[in-house]
Amino acid sequence: MDIATLRATHPDHWQKATAIRALAMDAVQAANSGHPGMPMGMADVASVLFENHLKFDASAPRWADRDRFILSAGHGSMLIYALLHLTGYADMTLEQIRNFRQWGAITAGHPEYGHVAGVETTTGPLGQGISNAVGFAMAEESLRARFGAKIVNHRTWVIAGDGCLMEGISQEAIGLAGMQRLKNLIVLWDNNDISIDGRISLSDITDQKARFAASGWMVLECDGHDPADIDRALSAAKSSDRPVLVDCKTHIGFGSPKKQDSAAAHGSPLGDAEIAATKEIYGWPHGAFEIPADVKAAWEAIGRRGAADRAEWETRFAALSAARQAEFTRVMAGEAPKKLGAAVKALKKDLAEKLPKVATRKASEMALAVINPVMPETIGGSADLSGSNLTKTGDLDVFNAENRKGRYVHYGIREHGMAAAMNGMALHGGVRPYGGTFLCFTDYARGAMRLSALMGVPAIYVMTHDSIGLGEDGPTHQPVEHLAICRATPNTLTFRPADAVETAEAWEIALSETARPSVLALSRQNLPTLRKDFVAKNLTAQGGYVLVEASAKAQVVLMATGSEVEIAVKARDLLEAGGVPTRVVSMPSMELFAAQPESYRRKVLPAGTVRIAIEAALRAGGWDRWLLGERGREAKSAFVGMQGFGASAPAERLYAEFGITAEAVAEKAKALL
Amino acid sequence: MDIATLRATHPDHWQKATAIRALAMDAVQAANSGHPGMPMGMADVASVLFENHLKFDASAPRWADRDRFILSAGHGSMLIYALLHLTGYADMTLEQIRNFRQWGAITAGHPEYGHVAGVETTTGPLGQGISNAVGFAMAEESLRARFGAKIVNHRTWVIAGDGCLMEGISQEAIGLAGMQRLKNLIVLWDNNDISIDGRISLSDITDQKARFAASGWMVLECDGHDPADIDRALSAAKSSDRPVLVDCKTHIGFGSPKKQDSAAAHGSPLGDAEIAATKEIYGWPHGAFEIPADVKAAWEAIGRRGAADRAEWETRFAALSAARQAEFTRVMAGEAPKKLGAAVKALKKDLAEKLPKVATRKASEMALAVINPVMPETIGGSADLSGSNLTKTGDLDVFNAENRKGRYVHYGIREHGMAAAMNGMALHGGVRPYGGTFLCFTDYARGAMRLSALMGVPAIYVMTHDSIGLGEDGPTHQPVEHLAICRATPNTLTFRPADAVETAEAWEIALSETARPSVLALSRQNLPTLRKDFVAKNLTAQGGYVLVEASAKAQVVLMATGSEVEIAVKARDLLEAGGVPTRVVSMPSMELFAAQPESYRRKVLPAGTVRIAIEAALRAGGWDRWLLGERGREAKSAFVGMQGFGASAPAERLYAEFGITAEAVAEKAKALL
Repeated sequence: MDIATLRATHPDHWQKATAIRALAMDAVQAANSGHPGMPMGMADVASVLFENHLKFDASAPRWADRDRFILSAGHGSMLIYALLHLTGYADMTLEQIRNFRQWGAITAGHPEYGHVAGVETTTGPLGQGISNAVGFAMAEESLRARFGAKIVNHRTWVIAGDGCLMEGISQEAIGLAGMQRLKNLIVLWDNNDISIDGRISLSDITDQKARFAASGWMVLECDGHDPADIDRALSAAKSSDRPVLVDCKTHIGFGSPKKQDSAAAHGSPLGDAEIAATKEIYGWPHGAFEIPADVKAAWEAIGRRGAADRAEWETRFAALSAARQAEFTRVMAGEAPKKLGAAVKALKKDLAEKLPKVATRKASEMALAVINPVMPETIGGSADLSGSNLTKTGDLDVFNAENRKGRYVHYGIREHGMAAAMNGMALHGGVRPYGGTFLCFTDYARGAMRLSALMGVPAIYVMTHDSIGLGEDGPTHQPVEHLAICRATPNTLTFRPADAVETAEAWEIALSETARPSVLALSRQNLPTLRKDFVAKNLTAQGGYVLVEASAKAQVVLMATGSEVEIAVKARDLLEAGGVPTRVVSMPSMELFAAQPESYRRKVLPAGTVRIAIEAALRAGGWDRWLLGERGREAKSAFVGMQGFGASAPAERLYAEFGITAEAVAEKAKALL
Repeated sequence: MDIATLRATHPDHWQKATAIRALAMDAVQAANSGHPGMPMGMADVASVLFENHLKFDASAPRWADRDRFILSAGHGSMLIYALLHLTGYADMTLEQIRNFRQWGAITAGHPEYGHVAGVETTTGPLGQGISNAVGFAMAEESLRARFGAKIVNHRTWVIAGDGCLMEGISQEAIGLAGMQRLKNLIVLWDNNDISIDGRISLSDITDQKARFAASGWMVLECDGHDPADIDRALSAAKSSDRPVLVDCKTHIGFGSPKKQDSAAAHGSPLGDAEIAATKEIYGWPHGAFEIPADVKAAWEAIGRRGAADRAEWETRFAALSAARQAEFTRVMAGEAPKKLGAAVKALKKDLAEKLPKVATRKASEMALAVINPVMPETIGGSADLSGSNLTKTGDLDVFNAENRKGRYVHYGIREHGMAAAMNGMALHGGVRPYGGTFLCFTDYARGAMRLSALMGVPAIYVMTHDSIGLGEDGPTHQPVEHLAICRATPNTLTFRPADAVETAEAWEIALSETARPSVLALSRQNLPTLRKDFVAKNLTAQGGYVLVEASAKAQVVLMATGSEVEIAVKARDLLEAGGVPTRVVSMPSMELFAAQPESYRRKVLPAGTVRIAIEAALRAGGWDRWLLGERGREAKSAFVGMQGFGASAPAERLYAEFGITAEAVAEKAKALL
């Protein structure tokens, strides 16, 4: 529909949608950076969505049963900021809009979770939002199965552009959503035929509708500038029994005389003259950032549209038993249950008695076996490595379209999609996602794992086969730099537990976190229980601690993580037998150790000793600080680990060939003494 | 087709295919690890491919015009090892097969490039092979356009499984190949309906054929156990004008009485009893690793099948002019032309005269403007950020189905697919790929970038917008840990040039490399030319060097990279003005600096000074070594950079807010003196 017809036939809609367009143009111009074209193109679709379909109450933006709106095409951030401002989200003042992309403003260049309610997830890296949305929709299904449709019954709406759909992660999301038959997931595709380099046909000829249909989605379409047609399509989408793609045909930079339908409208301010010309075409005589009172009032009425729904919901919620209310509130807040600590403590006692020799991946399964029964909010899964990651405990049924009470997801061979879905689940709230693959394949999930960290989402990554210890699969599957990558990522807890006790402790910490993701790096190979005596305190929470004390004042301190702690203990035996008092420090989490008071760190790593770090990975994984820094400069030190990529052979052979042995450690210590 | 019918109707084929199956079962059993099910399932397809279609000569495995065979489902490595052994590749002895997955053997768990000719690329991380293949096919088209169909005219054949097709990267590959209309690319899909967790339907309901067709592929199908039907499909595939998917319906673990069609056949030895029972069903009475002489002879005849073709090709090649022959040989060897050095030198002279103040991304474009004309083998591109990465120089036309002489690829919003395609192009040989995106989105490309490093492929990653200096786009687009990630990756050169001169030098090094990928981290913001005097020598090749000497014996050494070298120089001015002799070390490549002799490193970073490193990224990016180590332990040191994620605001504001300023550096130095 062209502008003249649209203005003539839908004058009220036109005013509201144009308010969005005007704010987008003005804010991008004021910031002298940003993306006006997408909000201008999608303003009609978004207006109809917010006016007629989206379940929300601007005065209660965190209402648990609201629909979730996800702007996967995050560069069009002014679209969501304008909507939040216009509908009356308290924090989204006009001042914030004026300060778009400025220091301290909540109106960041791309929408950031935590800045303002209404932004449900951080988007901008393309393809993430649509993939988060799959997790949102899964969480909704899971919670509805648990708490009933009177308490949980809402949709996840997504706006995605061609960029989102070209990213590989979108295929993982589409495949997962189709298989899971997520009927409450509706993706509105901003089909404007333009990407940054120009026409989409420069790089893609994919029939997106056929592609979504191939994965079991319902596919609808509409003229993205015809409110009635949009409304018809969104209504139809709501009665689907499968996820829905709505192909919304739009014009990027709609109405801009020189830039509509061109890449020039995408990522730069239009310029004052072009804005003036565009506003002329819009019939919008108002100054920059000026919204007429009647238009604002109309939008605010939309913002209140869900208030009655919400009041009814609160009545229904109040009718639940106190216990049910408390449980719902607890899981939505992401709080671990009180029982968790006791369960882990009991497990630790049991481990101290049995001293099992198991791989830490197996220890993880043992921990989950006591955790999952006391945390009904956990949803486990694996990217098609269930039997290797050992993420599926016996009490978990499979979550799928036939069984929404299931708590185990077969994510398929989709590491990136899994990580993004876990982000979405955690952001939705009410469920506690964990998911597994091989540590090496954090490579595939990296884009979403960074967003876990940036958003402060407590997703838990169960990353097994964490070194050359996996053996014959070879260097393609052997992480050497991945601990360095996880540790270099801000706001991420990386655990590499040495035995079953530390593994249980790491799980307890990870599940108690509310604002950081955790990576559990777990061995394929069996490891002895090294913490032989039960200690109630969670020692892993200190990050590093003295596991075995020297027989006298330590001359050597051996630091190690995971499977190499066993080697450190054996090296200590050799050194002590040779008359060298040697301390072993287990360092399951460098981040937590770094967060300890300096006095504690100095106690654990005293000055004046030889220091050796042992890890079957690269020294780049943060070891220089503990070897050279930390008032240890005077110490002589060495690193025993990998120098480069691994190789394909049985694990024991690899450890010997790469020189990661107790003997090599003891030799090195003696040479330094 | 069932085994009885197959044996009865195609006895010769049966013997040959069964030799593959037997070797796969035997080798996996001997190694006590590996994946027998896939080779058993795909042996018939692979046999028909090698016998009737694949253009190759086992005695000349590096023949430039051979067809490329890529086992994307790399876990089925015994399939390719068996084929190479049987057809007579000299290196692939029976001894190697017996030593499958053992230390020192060329028969690694997953096929590794460089171990043996015939393995064209390293596979195992799923989805990579099929995505490399797109690059192989693009390189072939490009070379044919340049050298003619008499010299370059071959196909790229891929075997891919469901794992490859579920990975998101496959969608990027499929989309790119479809748009590029790569008729010489044929993917054989091992459609066995099984993944590690069980039936595919546990995690996916995608109609793969419809999905490929949606991106413009021809789709064929065959009974993967009926040689005639396979042959018909492969023949049809060869006459397509588009890339082809052949849906090969197969049975994983074909013939195993207990494990066929089950996940149990996928990744574990079958066991001696099951192998015996299977061989009974096969009618294969031979012992482990035993291949009857007539079967081996039949296979070796197949291995010689292409010899005549190759001889004719060599005649045609010999008919080329000496210059054409030399040029073809040079580009296939990946050698930079002699002119490169002179071109870069001339540019450096010009820069020393003009002292431009440009972003290093712009400087990169300036370098490419002199490089591309003297290196006709370069193929540039960008993941839909051409105008931001500045990767398209004026002389490059777009490479697409209409113009195979074009040398610029619009990869679309497909960072991972781009990186994998670049790997494929470089592995194919004859072309020299470089491609751009934002440094932050190395996250998306990480899986393929690691394989560049592992394979030693000299792909060049042009990664612009390399810090908070990109400004308003905010933390989703601002790398802070990515330099750490690139530097932590073995066998990768990471460059962060400070100005236009270092940028040109980095390009020269990257293009001269034959066995390492390079990452060029380039600024969005303008930077002054700091190397003001022309120096013929490539100083960047030293990794770190004294850019500005102290006025007297240095009390302070400031180390910096990229955009922060300017800050270091300004801080030096402040310190020198305050009477503190201060040296500035530019460190464009830590890897190259670390590779210098210790004597050189000590000269650049002398003992007894205050050391400060400045980089708008995390200290985890390798700085501890230069601050604390390197015989600098006695030095007082500090790091000025990022502590965590960035923020959305103009760049100057961010530098000020995060304290990365000349004033802050000078203050810190004074405090330490």
